[in-house]
Amino acid sequence: MGGADIERLIALLARLPGLGPRSARRAALALLRQPQARMLPLAQAMEQAARSVRTCSTCGNLDTRDPCAICTDPGRDRGVVCVVETVGDLWALERAGVHRGVYQVLGGTLSALAGTGPDDLNLAPLLARLEAGGVREVILALGATVEGAATTHWLQDRLVGFDVPVSRVGQGLPMGGALDVLDDGTLAAALTARKIHS
Amino acid sequence: MGGADIERLIALLARLPGLGPRSARRAALALLRQPQARMLPLAQAMEQAARSVRTCSTCGNLDTRDPCAICTDPGRDRGVVCVVETVGDLWALERAGVHRGVYQVLGGTLSALAGTGPDDLNLAPLLARLEAGGVREVILALGATVEGAATTHWLQDRLVGFDVPVSRVGQGLPMGGALDVLDDGTLAAALTARKIHS
Repeated sequence: MGGADIERLIALLARLPGLGPRSARRAALALLRQPQARMLPLAQAMEQAARSVRTCSTCGNLDTRDPCAICTDPGRDRGVVCVVETVGDLWALERAGVHRGVYQVLGGTLSALAGTGPDDLNLAPLLARLEAGGVREVILALGATVEGAATTHWLQDRLVGFDVPVSRVGQGLPMGGALDVLDDGTLAAALTARKIHS
Repeated sequence: MGGADIERLIALLARLPGLGPRSARRAALALLRQPQARMLPLAQAMEQAARSVRTCSTCGNLDTRDPCAICTDPGRDRGVVCVVETVGDLWALERAGVHRGVYQVLGGTLSALAGTGPDDLNLAPLLARLEAGGVREVILALGATVEGAATTHWLQDRLVGFDVPVSRVGQGLPMGGALDVLDDGTLAAALTARKIHS
């Protein structure tokens, strides 16, 4: 229906995360209805991004320049390095505007299932920064998953020789979270992380 | 975060139906991780489709040729014309493989809210085909919505002078539909459309 060009467009759209065959067809139709106003601008934005975007050799972020805008921002505290798993995690923290230091994107977590070992993590730039001095704190902001916790523990061990405080993000109730819908693990973590209101 | 090229890519992806800001970011990240393997092929498929795909002047379908593959298929019955609202509806019927005739895509329905009147519907090619003769049946396959029903009634009136049988698709229980989850309108339509098993 509609020829090979349309079939190919739908097949490639369906491979995007969040889109299945049905929504890929809807997206393709929306684009085909406005080839000049919608499809060509998107195609050109993709080509432009594919040409211009690279991985920051300092922190692992994606940006059009290397080092990235965060690493070169004079307003950011290069003494506080926040370690995250993915660029998506970095973006989430930037949207929240809660970290004024810099980042290190590991690119993954230790996972026996996925076959990811220490050598697969992008850790060397962080070690180089620690060796160069000037880092006052490393914040481990990995997910509260089995792999995230394993990676956090491994990093805590790995960084112990640098004489720099290594912290990890707190665990507990998410904002707006009612207790009766949360899982046992979150409730246990929230109780363990309780603070005494003197 | 990540420069203007990435922001622009995310903004354009977020305008696709089925994608919001969050899933657009996930899709952009997936594409940015594999610029050569995923992003450029998708960009090129879009440019190719934008160049090659046109609207069939006979039926309103989207295809790389005009008239489209359905209109020129010698195996299809040009005597039976199925009227649908959108190209997406045409694709759905083609996937189901239930119509061996040809189509007429109206491009919309009569809607006071949307401000769509008879002149906005792509009806002229169908009238031309009816005047030319050879059409043995017109099947109205519009949605069971208020606008779809209004358009069906208007078309039944409009086509009465051509001395060609005009049918409309049946209404009733969807396949696999349990009665207790269906709305009153569907149940009423199903009872009205009941058939006597002699």
